[in-house]
Amino acid sequence: MQLGVLDQASLYDPLTIRVGCDFHHEIYAPVPAIFLVRPAGSLAAQVLHETWQMTPAGPYHDYVDVYGNVCRRLTLQPGSSTLTYAADVVVPGEPDPVAFDVQQAGVEELPDDVLAYTLPSRFCLSDELTGEAWRLFGYTTPGWARVQTICDYVHDYVAFDYQSTHPTKTSSDTYASRTGVCRDFTHLAIAFIRAMNIPARYVFGYIPDIDVPISDAPMDFAAWLEVYLGDRWWTFDPRNNERRRGRVLIARGRDALDVAMVTTYGNAFLKGMTVVAEQKMT
Amino acid sequence: MQLGVLDQASLYDPLTIRVGCDFHHEIYAPVPAIFLVRPAGSLAAQVLHETWQMTPAGPYHDYVDVYGNVCRRLTLQPGSSTLTYAADVVVPGEPDPVAFDVQQAGVEELPDDVLAYTLPSRFCLSDELTGEAWRLFGYTTPGWARVQTICDYVHDYVAFDYQSTHPTKTSSDTYASRTGVCRDFTHLAIAFIRAMNIPARYVFGYIPDIDVPISDAPMDFAAWLEVYLGDRWWTFDPRNNERRRGRVLIARGRDALDVAMVTTYGNAFLKGMTVVAEQKMT
Amino acid sequence: MQLGVLDQASLYDPLTIRVGCDFHHEIYAPVPAIFLVRPAGSLAAQVLHETWQMTPAGPYHDYVDVYGNVCRRLTLQPGSSTLTYAADVVVPGEPDPVAFDVQQAGVEELPDDVLAYTLPSRFCLSDELTGEAWRLFGYTTPGWARVQTICDYVHDYVAFDYQSTHPTKTSSDTYASRTGVCRDFTHLAIAFIRAMNIPARYVFGYIPDIDVPISDAPMDFAAWLEVYLGDRWWTFDPRNNERRRGRVLIARGRDALDVAMVTTYGNAFLKGMTVVAEQKMT
Amino acid sequence: MQLGVLDQASLYDPLTIRVGCDFHHEIYAPVPAIFLVRPAGSLAAQVLHETWQMTPAGPYHDYVDVYGNVCRRLTLQPGSSTLTYAADVVVPGEPDPVAFDVQQAGVEELPDDVLAYTLPSRFCLSDELTGEAWRLFGYTTPGWARVQTICDYVHDYVAFDYQSTHPTKTSSDTYASRTGVCRDFTHLAIAFIRAMNIPARYVFGYIPDIDVPISDAPMDFAAWLEVYLGDRWWTFDPRNNERRRGRVLIARGRDALDVAMVTTYGNAFLKGMTVVAEQKMT
Repeated sequence: MQLGVLDQASLYDPLTIRVGCDFHHEIYAPVPAIFLVRPAGSLAAQVLHETWQMTPAGPYHDYVDVYGNVCRRLTLQPGSSTLTYAADVVVPGEPDPVAFDVQQAGVEELPDDVLAYTLPSRFCLSDELTGEAWRLFGYTTPGWARVQTICDYVHDYVAFDYQSTHPTKTSSDTYASRTGVCRDFTHLAIAFIRAMNIPARYVFGYIPDIDVPISDAPMDFAAWLEVYLGDRWWTFDPRNNERRRGRVLIARGRDALDVAMVTTYGNAFLKGMTVVAEQKMT
Repeated sequence: MQLGVLDQASLYDPLTIRVGCDFHHEIYAPVPAIFLVRPAGSLAAQVLHETWQMTPAGPYHDYVDVYGNVCRRLTLQPGSSTLTYAADVVVPGEPDPVAFDVQQAGVEELPDDVLAYTLPSRFCLSDELTGEAWRLFGYTTPGWARVQTICDYVHDYVAFDYQSTHPTKTSSDTYASRTGVCRDFTHLAIAFIRAMNIPARYVFGYIPDIDVPISDAPMDFAAWLEVYLGDRWWTFDPRNNERRRGRVLIARGRDALDVAMVTTYGNAFLKGMTVVAEQKMT
Repeated sequence: MQLGVLDQASLYDPLTIRVGCDFHHEIYAPVPAIFLVRPAGSLAAQVLHETWQMTPAGPYHDYVDVYGNVCRRLTLQPGSSTLTYAADVVVPGEPDPVAFDVQQAGVEELPDDVLAYTLPSRFCLSDELTGEAWRLFGYTTPGWARVQTICDYVHDYVAFDYQSTHPTKTSSDTYASRTGVCRDFTHLAIAFIRAMNIPARYVFGYIPDIDVPISDAPMDFAAWLEVYLGDRWWTFDPRNNERRRGRVLIARGRDALDVAMVTTYGNAFLKGMTVVAEQKMT
Repeated sequence: MQLGVLDQASLYDPLTIRVGCDFHHEIYAPVPAIFLVRPAGSLAAQVLHETWQMTPAGPYHDYVDVYGNVCRRLTLQPGSSTLTYAADVVVPGEPDPVAFDVQQAGVEELPDDVLAYTLPSRFCLSDELTGEAWRLFGYTTPGWARVQTICDYVHDYVAFDYQSTHPTKTSSDTYASRTGVCRDFTHLAIAFIRAMNIPARYVFGYIPDIDVPISDAPMDFAAWLEVYLGDRWWTFDPRNNERRRGRVLIARGRDALDVAMVTTYGNAFLKGMTVVAEQKMT
């Protein structure tokens, strides 16, 4: 039985992560836009301080979407437009937790509010990949091993290539092309996992380079996934395929469509974007 | 300014509609299932009496999904399994309302909770059809005329054919094949409407044959759509393309995936289904 | 660390509980009413079959309140009016779980959605009883012991008396009068618990007489409470003050005001009410 | 019938309101706290820029309560603690709208999600004041006139007195003492309005002195109320009892308990608070 005891004290000190991003658009007519770049509010990711800056300044307001994500809504004005967000965020110091022996609940045991994450979505076509999923992974032990095997498979199968993605690329497209970016790795893994009746959801945020070689590539937003096993959600990351420290989650949804960092209505030319995610030493 | 006056007395008496359905499955191993067949609770659709019958009897419970739909969740047991639902429902007597002069809000004026219905979804690939939508309908007057023109187009363009649909058929598939059932008509129209930055959502329910020739075809569930114009949602129906009386709405969502009448996890062979929707004379 | 393992198989077989109620009103003019008598939908309380009967028949619809309770809304018509609900419900066979060593989270550790249950409400005036709560219970060990001590105290302090309650009786009234019914026991215990910064919520439902002497008194709805300790909600029952089997929960809220079994607008004379809750032997 | 046309262009230009507040606490041990001081996000109240400053700096996060209010949660640290919020907000330029002929819906016609605002709450004891409400206002014409008569009554009946209020003062206390601050005026009016089966909710925010003599008194947060008539919520303000321009709403709830500007758990001594609300000339 679940005893409801609180988590034990950790061996790891909390981390302070400096995160931020900068979008530069060229606009010819006013463009309504929604930005999703702020860390999701939770006890596990508290903000030390943060700044938003928009040039030229203009009105905005925040609203909450159906998944609980807080979105910033505004209209980009004609001309050169810059939005800059920066924050210092305190997160737990542990690597993503692991539980090899966690059991996989039968669908009939899943909580009601988790069921939606067993279904296909715009970019995670689990219905199309059901046959392949069972052919490839039907032999695995249900639970952690099954999910990890899928992540290993996707990690090895897909070649990372910035040039290979496009805005409507689905899990089936990634399965066919064997190339993609972190969002495509994530969509393909989610499609396989849902195809096997395990709830999976898409998350994105900032991942600093901690305990790993510093990458040469420019920083970017990162996508990964959460899988419901036992009685909670667990982090998996088929792109990096390692237990990382310091993730700062921005938003959760069914796939990248639900949680785009920027949604624009009209012609907004993205001239540049920078992302920052790094441990702040104190 | 909106004066907030209540609706005037109607020329039409309320209608009592008898609705119901009957699913017959053959099952070899227990199959978790979710049924969505009950009229959505609202002042505009009140139930006079209703019955559920499941053979063999088994446990179930109801839960509420993220759109507010009340879903019945149960596990179909091996053998021959029948679920029967029937209800008498009182609905307003008016035909679907019309407002030719309603204005189309700019995206920057839309309420926050409506924005999600401007985005693509699993079966309504408005992102893929954006070019076609603007090529075909860019010349129309924004607002009611634009939406009605899209519905007229889809109504004429797609040939109804029960054999032509399949579970993963998208709006793009329907646009290519020019065939479909009411769900495909609806998905295609929604994709075009969203592509033009007008919020549209998928609904399904029961439509009795009132003021129209009685159809020879067996009754079925019906899919149609709601479009946000001015400051509210309006009913459109590209399959029938006429203002109908007596619709009994079951559920709303982004597309047929969100609001399936039956979702099963495992092998459930649907051996038969009947649907009833008829005006009850008193 | 929380391992997320599923609950172990139980020593107890699930119980089937027959629940139901019957309201008889006399009405002189139409009275809008809301009934909350159906077991809350969950995997832990599945319905085998259920019936609603209203005499005279009339229209109704169901809606979901802000706490997730499904409420039945209708208008009672002039004359003699009867509403009867009956269901067989399958619930886990275990007694209410116990965890003496569960820790009490500090307020700063509580989940966001639990915070509302630390505040006073209409009938649970924890703000007025703060001084008394700390005077009486400040010496206790935080956690399970503190909550159980409060329940013991209320159980012993308040004398059960059907004649002693009234519709606006608050926790302070009960503290002064030392009499009450299960709802008053519950309100007083909740007020003390919240006064000590522990989240507590009011629940009501059906409790069959299992493992206890059959009561002579006519059956009634029962009120009890849930307390948030560790990382979940736990059942406490200051009226009976024993771990019971077979509870069938109807609704949750901040106090009896949020979750009345019947709310009427206008003059509805309750001429009679019966409640059934008993184990069904198979 | 409601035509769904958008609001007409206004005679009034939008207003830019500078709002803000400053809390100074003395703390001896860490105190968990929740602040609700930011304008509610909506198209009708867009932020131009805003700043939060906390001294000493410390971690915080934002969450959304059950009414949709975005709350800032943090822990005040021992010592002298200051939180400062400031924003420029663009709001419509019109005075609070008026609709003398709006009809009062019968309870049986009210939308489901409005029903909760017909019930008593911690500080609005409409159940206790039902007899008085009908005695005093039963003769009035239902609708706007009834609500305005109640606001006139409360405005004249209660004497404003900063010294007269206290944290647990209810509508009944205000009715007995005939004194109070804006929150007490509001609670009493809400209690009367709900007692007559009209939905009313508590709101608070910033009110600049526009079109009125500049007050000598230091600025403060202001409480007023919204009443559901016809098919929408309307603003009433029994404290000022005039149609004002430039209100900046922070939060909505059942009463002041649901929407406190500051909730603290433990001993936090409020040494000073300043509030700013003024039209910004451009």
